[in-house]
Amino acid sequence: MKKIALLTSGGDAPGMNPCIRAIVHEAEERGIEVVAFRRGFSGLLDNDCFIMKRPDTSGIIQRGGTILLSSRCEDFKYEDGQKEGIKNLFANECDGLIVIGGDGSLRGAQTISDRGVAVVGVPGSIDNDIYGTDMALGVDTALNNIVRVIDMIKDTASSHERTFIIEVMGRGSGYLALVSAIATGSEAAIIPEVPFDMDKIAARLLQRFQRKANSNIIVVAEGAATAYQVGRQLSKIAGISSKVTVLGHLQRGGSPSTYDRVLGARLGSAAICQLLSGKSNCMVGMVKGEIAATPIDIVLKNKRVFDERLIQLAETLGN
Amino acid sequence: MKKIALLTSGGDAPGMNPCIRAIVHEAEERGIEVVAFRRGFSGLLDNDCFIMKRPDTSGIIQRGGTILLSSRCEDFKYEDGQKEGIKNLFANECDGLIVIGGDGSLRGAQTISDRGVAVVGVPGSIDNDIYGTDMALGVDTALNNIVRVIDMIKDTASSHERTFIIEVMGRGSGYLALVSAIATGSEAAIIPEVPFDMDKIAARLLQRFQRKANSNIIVVAEGAATAYQVGRQLSKIAGISSKVTVLGHLQRGGSPSTYDRVLGARLGSAAICQLLSGKSNCMVGMVKGEIAATPIDIVLKNKRVFDERLIQLAETLGN
Amino acid sequence: MKKIALLTSGGDAPGMNPCIRAIVHEAEERGIEVVAFRRGFSGLLDNDCFIMKRPDTSGIIQRGGTILLSSRCEDFKYEDGQKEGIKNLFANECDGLIVIGGDGSLRGAQTISDRGVAVVGVPGSIDNDIYGTDMALGVDTALNNIVRVIDMIKDTASSHERTFIIEVMGRGSGYLALVSAIATGSEAAIIPEVPFDMDKIAARLLQRFQRKANSNIIVVAEGAATAYQVGRQLSKIAGISSKVTVLGHLQRGGSPSTYDRVLGARLGSAAICQLLSGKSNCMVGMVKGEIAATPIDIVLKNKRVFDERLIQLAETLGN
Amino acid sequence: MKKIALLTSGGDAPGMNPCIRAIVHEAEERGIEVVAFRRGFSGLLDNDCFIMKRPDTSGIIQRGGTILLSSRCEDFKYEDGQKEGIKNLFANECDGLIVIGGDGSLRGAQTISDRGVAVVGVPGSIDNDIYGTDMALGVDTALNNIVRVIDMIKDTASSHERTFIIEVMGRGSGYLALVSAIATGSEAAIIPEVPFDMDKIAARLLQRFQRKANSNIIVVAEGAATAYQVGRQLSKIAGISSKVTVLGHLQRGGSPSTYDRVLGARLGSAAICQLLSGKSNCMVGMVKGEIAATPIDIVLKNKRVFDERLIQLAETLGN
Repeated sequence: MKKIALLTSGGDAPGMNPCIRAIVHEAEERGIEVVAFRRGFSGLLDNDCFIMKRPDTSGIIQRGGTILLSSRCEDFKYEDGQKEGIKNLFANECDGLIVIGGDGSLRGAQTISDRGVAVVGVPGSIDNDIYGTDMALGVDTALNNIVRVIDMIKDTASSHERTFIIEVMGRGSGYLALVSAIATGSEAAIIPEVPFDMDKIAARLLQRFQRKANSNIIVVAEGAATAYQVGRQLSKIAGISSKVTVLGHLQRGGSPSTYDRVLGARLGSAAICQLLSGKSNCMVGMVKGEIAATPIDIVLKNKRVFDERLIQLAETLGN
Repeated sequence: MKKIALLTSGGDAPGMNPCIRAIVHEAEERGIEVVAFRRGFSGLLDNDCFIMKRPDTSGIIQRGGTILLSSRCEDFKYEDGQKEGIKNLFANECDGLIVIGGDGSLRGAQTISDRGVAVVGVPGSIDNDIYGTDMALGVDTALNNIVRVIDMIKDTASSHERTFIIEVMGRGSGYLALVSAIATGSEAAIIPEVPFDMDKIAARLLQRFQRKANSNIIVVAEGAATAYQVGRQLSKIAGISSKVTVLGHLQRGGSPSTYDRVLGARLGSAAICQLLSGKSNCMVGMVKGEIAATPIDIVLKNKRVFDERLIQLAETLGN
Repeated sequence: MKKIALLTSGGDAPGMNPCIRAIVHEAEERGIEVVAFRRGFSGLLDNDCFIMKRPDTSGIIQRGGTILLSSRCEDFKYEDGQKEGIKNLFANECDGLIVIGGDGSLRGAQTISDRGVAVVGVPGSIDNDIYGTDMALGVDTALNNIVRVIDMIKDTASSHERTFIIEVMGRGSGYLALVSAIATGSEAAIIPEVPFDMDKIAARLLQRFQRKANSNIIVVAEGAATAYQVGRQLSKIAGISSKVTVLGHLQRGGSPSTYDRVLGARLGSAAICQLLSGKSNCMVGMVKGEIAATPIDIVLKNKRVFDERLIQLAETLGN
Repeated sequence: MKKIALLTSGGDAPGMNPCIRAIVHEAEERGIEVVAFRRGFSGLLDNDCFIMKRPDTSGIIQRGGTILLSSRCEDFKYEDGQKEGIKNLFANECDGLIVIGGDGSLRGAQTISDRGVAVVGVPGSIDNDIYGTDMALGVDTALNNIVRVIDMIKDTASSHERTFIIEVMGRGSGYLALVSAIATGSEAAIIPEVPFDMDKIAARLLQRFQRKANSNIIVVAEGAATAYQVGRQLSKIAGISSKVTVLGHLQRGGSPSTYDRVLGARLGSAAICQLLSGKSNCMVGMVKGEIAATPIDIVLKNKRVFDERLIQLAETLGN
């Protein structure tokens, strides 16, 4: 192997930059060049690339997002697009490809792999919904972002003895909502994995009011309900008025946490090692505290589930 | 003077706690007791109060919100409520009253003053719309909160080359929107003080796209438009797609900035000094870098305006 | 079991408060009372305790340190002290004891266990030097504190093209130094686990100067050398001048990270469950991503070692 | 005027980058080119410069330090150096020069001005010791850095009931120490402006111990004493043991606060306007809330003094 292609794709996640940096450093250490494509698979189609060297990664370790830019590329879902991508990989003499991104990006990576190119995926997605890794790049930073903001909102909630409903990201996964509820001692978490009982939540709040615990936080994953829906139901069922905050894109921004920087470094380094050892068509991840590779098709066929005891824990701690 | 009443009222603002602390310390230093009422004017009506001493202020200097709690009190707008409030001040032998809050709270303070009680107001409002002070308590912290979050959103905006529209607080004042736009180098600020020209903003963005500057931030004060309205217009006029974030209550939370802590300390100390020197029916504020008192009726009759050159500056720096 | 004693001991660590909160919530859920002793084993000797209930834990989840206070207690190393402690446990009808702390505190816990009381330990120590858990309470927060500060120092380092030597905590363990070096892309980490070669480090810096990479960060664990020693050697060997910063106690302060809050919650809950299920004389920890209990004597007999590949990774990324 | 030279000099300060950005934007708006010299006066001597345009300032507004780099230049103190600098200004057709820096840098600027070049200074120095501005660039950020770290150390101080002595920057000025002591509610501030009475400080701490207020913070400006000296005296006079933290360079790093970004923007814009209106040999600053220019020789002849009432305030609030 002499040259390896690299791209970041799908939603950006903090930790992608430290991962890019590690890939470039590990590659140079081993005498390999990194051909970096901009804007994910779009750049692969447009052949928008450059040889990325160590000085290009200077100062990026502490920056959120991805300096290689990202996008969602419709054309790449079709055969013509995929062929064009392969053509550009060959034109740039790339013997392998590393794709940092979420489920959709790994699906794109697999189509490349199916056409005979050695591909390794790195999981980047704040939702933490990717099978084959305990934590994806960006999850820990997103959690810290959410928790910091809920802490701030609690200042107002307790000063005014109000109930706040906070909507966080997570279309298919309630991980962010559940874990941030535990970390902030919130009174309830509403997630897509578990049918939620609005009567029970309302009863808990009413009990709290009785013992003069007048401020409440409910965290809701966007995949389960909107914060406005929850607010309307609380009002209808129990006459509880509430304020709504939809956290939005701030969740995925900001300087990566230490955890995401180190995870990015380890996965980036491991991705290079996988390619060099001849293993590919896999995703590197953190499995039970160890770096491990899982075949991409297994990653794509399975749904990540989180420890159910977290749900019970949130319940107990929210009382 | 032997006893002074204290309450926080209206929207909570970071800096209220350091101000409360300073009032208690300055009062004890001068042999005066502070009678603290909970929940603003509501607590005054309910006679919900306690003697607040130095140990009660331990650890509060770094906390957002107000440990005395706050509320908006409808009853106090009527004569019966006001008489009840006065009665409770007398019942607790209070010779004076300090009210920390915004315009509405100062209006409440004035009705007390009109009935012969010595009253001093302290401006607390993140909107910075109170006449008689260059900066109200909470403004600097709110600005830092907003700027930190916009910095975070810029990570995603630049990674995906997107346009974000960010809605910040400010019903009657565009101060937060304007200053945070300057501080983040945003492409446009939309504020209630200036009629905004959507065509001009769209033209600026289109020009930027031409020179490959593909990510944009527009900050909009809630008093001028909603972020969704701005987004729809951008799309209609110029076909520019955008993402929306409504910052909400996180803006007023969080540990107070150094500026707000020191401002709170100075204003709290000054409020006690005003009362002791026999001057009252005034609001203490920061005027041209100095602590100064302004009669409450002048505060209420005038609207704070900010330096117009900031508008030109935002224009120049957003290019 | 009706009553369980709780104390925090040794160096304080962020995450202790969320752990205390979880212990109290889990206990109340199961109909058990928590008898909280202040100041660690000192408070146990002085019988300084109170029944801790859910409202006592309000607002503590986001606070660093430990609200139960901590200390290092000399008297408890002797038999008389230990007997006094046992006496007070019995006097308060405690059927079990939870100790949150580091190696020394677990040793104290074991002496109690040896006298027949059911004891469960929870690892709290920013050094991450406790066997039986992948991460102790406080490590993740401390790492984030260190990394944030190194990021700040890099602003000056790069503006002035200077070399900074930053001394971090870690008497017996280089974990904090090593991981923070990886997370900041530092040029070298000096840790007690590996003999360090000053000539090699100097050579690396000289190479960097040649390619105009003029600013450098070296992270040193206090257990390996002082920052001043490293600075003097750099100057002597290669004539490289440097600036020194000793981070000190800021490392262990600050609001706990999400990771530490969740770890604290899980370990606290697990500690109660251990006691209730009749298992004791153990420490609960996070082992390969799962909560698991390890006998205290095994914890104390073994030394935690970290993944050696981290050392190679730091080497590669620092180039 | 067609071209204006720009350099940053002396100690770096957060806010320099937003100021650089504003200078470039304001200049382009008015059809002027900015010739940016690297490494302060050293770069002027070496003729190390480039034409700086708006895209060069992309993404710098949120970064600490100075992207133009800085240095202390010995050669420029001598006539030969100054002549060389003037020569390079002429060689690059610069009609004016903007210098961002502290006292020493302004002294360098004056020697240029004395040789007939239009010069405007912008005050940048975290010490806040420059006459002619209420706040220099970097002061507000440094204060927030210090306060955040003291808040963190207070977690440990209160958990262990310890006394901490914290040394902050400020050779000739106690501004940072005094204001951060007020903002953290510290028990004492030791500053060069006021002779300090160690007996009195010790007496205050002993009184606090008596009423069980067992944790204390003393902030000391490096220009008044070292933290170690203070610690030794506390021990000798009153047998009080303490821990020491020297904050060091983290104080001047980090993303600039909103205040420093806006101050940088206003001063940068004002510097261009001064030069264009034919006024020079001055420093622009913030005087009583307004941007104003002061002749450089007056700036250099006078010492900035801060409001004495802050000293009394620190005293009252530290009780």
